[in-house]
Amino acid sequence: MSDPRVAGAGVTKFGKHPERTGRDLFAEAGLEALDAAGVAPDDVDALYYGNFMGELAEHQGHQGPLMAEAIGVDAPATRFEAACASAGAAVRSAVRDLRNGEAEVVVVGGAERMTNIGTAAATDALAIAADDLYEVRAGMTFPGAYALMARSYFDQYGGSREDLAHIAVKNHEHALVNEHAQIQKEITVEDAIEAPTIASPLGLYDSCPITDGAAAAVLTTAEYAADHDIDAPVAITGTGQGGDNLALQDRPHLAQTPAADKAAEEAYGDAGIGPEDVDVAEVHDCFTIAEVLAIESLGLYERGEGIHAATNGETDRHGEMPVNLSGGLKAKGHPVGATGVAQLATVAWVLDGTHPRADAVPDGTVGVAHNAGGTVASTTVHVLEVKA
Amino acid sequence: MSDPRVAGAGVTKFGKHPERTGRDLFAEAGLEALDAAGVAPDDVDALYYGNFMGELAEHQGHQGPLMAEAIGVDAPATRFEAACASAGAAVRSAVRDLRNGEAEVVVVGGAERMTNIGTAAATDALAIAADDLYEVRAGMTFPGAYALMARSYFDQYGGSREDLAHIAVKNHEHALVNEHAQIQKEITVEDAIEAPTIASPLGLYDSCPITDGAAAAVLTTAEYAADHDIDAPVAITGTGQGGDNLALQDRPHLAQTPAADKAAEEAYGDAGIGPEDVDVAEVHDCFTIAEVLAIESLGLYERGEGIHAATNGETDRHGEMPVNLSGGLKAKGHPVGATGVAQLATVAWVLDGTHPRADAVPDGTVGVAHNAGGTVASTTVHVLEVKA
Repeated sequence: MSDPRVAGAGVTKFGKHPERTGRDLFAEAGLEALDAAGVAPDDVDALYYGNFMGELAEHQGHQGPLMAEAIGVDAPATRFEAACASAGAAVRSAVRDLRNGEAEVVVVGGAERMTNIGTAAATDALAIAADDLYEVRAGMTFPGAYALMARSYFDQYGGSREDLAHIAVKNHEHALVNEHAQIQKEITVEDAIEAPTIASPLGLYDSCPITDGAAAAVLTTAEYAADHDIDAPVAITGTGQGGDNLALQDRPHLAQTPAADKAAEEAYGDAGIGPEDVDVAEVHDCFTIAEVLAIESLGLYERGEGIHAATNGETDRHGEMPVNLSGGLKAKGHPVGATGVAQLATVAWVLDGTHPRADAVPDGTVGVAHNAGGTVASTTVHVLEVKA
Repeated sequence: MSDPRVAGAGVTKFGKHPERTGRDLFAEAGLEALDAAGVAPDDVDALYYGNFMGELAEHQGHQGPLMAEAIGVDAPATRFEAACASAGAAVRSAVRDLRNGEAEVVVVGGAERMTNIGTAAATDALAIAADDLYEVRAGMTFPGAYALMARSYFDQYGGSREDLAHIAVKNHEHALVNEHAQIQKEITVEDAIEAPTIASPLGLYDSCPITDGAAAAVLTTAEYAADHDIDAPVAITGTGQGGDNLALQDRPHLAQTPAADKAAEEAYGDAGIGPEDVDVAEVHDCFTIAEVLAIESLGLYERGEGIHAATNGETDRHGEMPVNLSGGLKAKGHPVGATGVAQLATVAWVLDGTHPRADAVPDGTVGVAHNAGGTVASTTVHVLEVKA
């Protein structure tokens, strides 16, 4: 069985949508994806959907069937939850089922509503991705957790707040060419360094915003695409998932993300490629330091070298290894359950040349999407390649 | 690839566990399942885990990696959520991945903590399985929803509170031979009819209790079992899943459950059997009326006939079509995320003869497990068969 294809994708504007429900957001993204693919809702075999905090933000669980109905799909619908990697987990299951003949057309997607409950409640809701008993009750929230990881990285490998600032500056600049991005504002290294501290050494511009939004993609088999005249040159050729202990205290070190190492190794092996083949990467930069850990786990940089990549201009859209062309979670925004599929959409659009700002993003034939949950206790990595 | 086998299962005592966390409960069930299977945690390829209301009951999402760590498993771990069918969705994904060579050993399971937040808050938390915008805000909770379905059934097909009482009496009697059951108390038809009304026509004994508990099973391939001297005669030969609109208002009728019809049709087709081959069934009787709808969707009874099955003594453990030998959700208890795998465990133990009260339950070679979410907006059906 050949590798599944990305037949079409849809992403809402990320940002504050105070008058829109999660289902309203997902309907927009899902219908846009179906339209882009030229696939009718009746032809969909399953919906695999990511959502993280619907119980807390919208008093709504059981969103699988709700979202299927929202896009007119009458098929089994399942919600996957792996914290911020929820949509990545949904994609992985869809890839496997398409490869193995369990389905011909699967909609993958996700949505999250966060701004309606306010920043404090959203921060508290995000904390359920950490270990409530051993971390959250002790006062830990995610800015604090990633601050610990950044401190550990600086201690072990070097680097500075200035290096992190270069990542923020780069991702803000990238978001200028992403019409879906929440934050479209150029910043300077000085802006980032001088911004208020959130959890030392991380400042305001080291952190992604609180975001409402949705993303969806129609995945199908190469055979189905060919039989139905669907132009879908981008294949998902590799899938990987790794896990780690939820609590930071249960890990041997804080400056590495072994769950992502494992996911990357599996995905590359599955695709039969290596990091040297990757042209573009979308990675999970919920905080700037997370981008560093991600590009090292993906093997795009050696341990201790990732911190210099943005500073050296290598990971910007004109550089040799462009990372987060979408603006990343940092500037595009991070509607948790949607993020993994929004990453997939960006990579697919860059590779197949349908990116709305194809003039402003590099070309490529191989891309990766790295989606991480919690303090990287869950990670999925997917490899996308242009095929004939 | 041959059908996956049930290598071992573990279930905690269902009931009130005020001093135990969800991870504590799952560790007991998971380690018991691994021990029963004779499989080491290091040999597990993935954990597929069901949980429904952890965000609300324990302020804990991202439970996949948490539960993997609790049983010593270092492997990808994903949470599935389809309301009360969460564990069933996890089983379905495991069955497919084992069949298709994506894994050799998968732990499936689930856990739920509910009693710690009290009955009112648990009822509110359960309501997130319904449509918050169009049902819950109008005051609907699940007893009310199933009361509507019961009224519709009585109107369309006949039946009475007395028929429902017979289901409660049967399941209470079955729970007497299930050491894990929450409620081990014999009741009479009069007790059930005279019990306080919860939502007319449903009374106290028509409703399952609020429950803490966990369940787990080790699933593997027939080849792995043979190579590792694992005695695992029970195969999962059929899997099906169906979906429906979340809100009752969006359905053409309330006295049928088409999501379960579709799941059953798919599962039977997958297994190459029909309802006439089924020896035992565990079905999702969150309310007594739900057992009626389930056995009709499974094709064990014609439409309008299921209501008489318990009254006629046909579905008790001495009858021709024993249903809910475990006591069902009604008397065994319903720790939501665990229920689908607890059903699987009961069917497997009955079929392979390892049921702790094998003397008190019938024999059989074919069983089905029917796990439903919300007002049957999500349903999974699995067929289990004894194989050589």
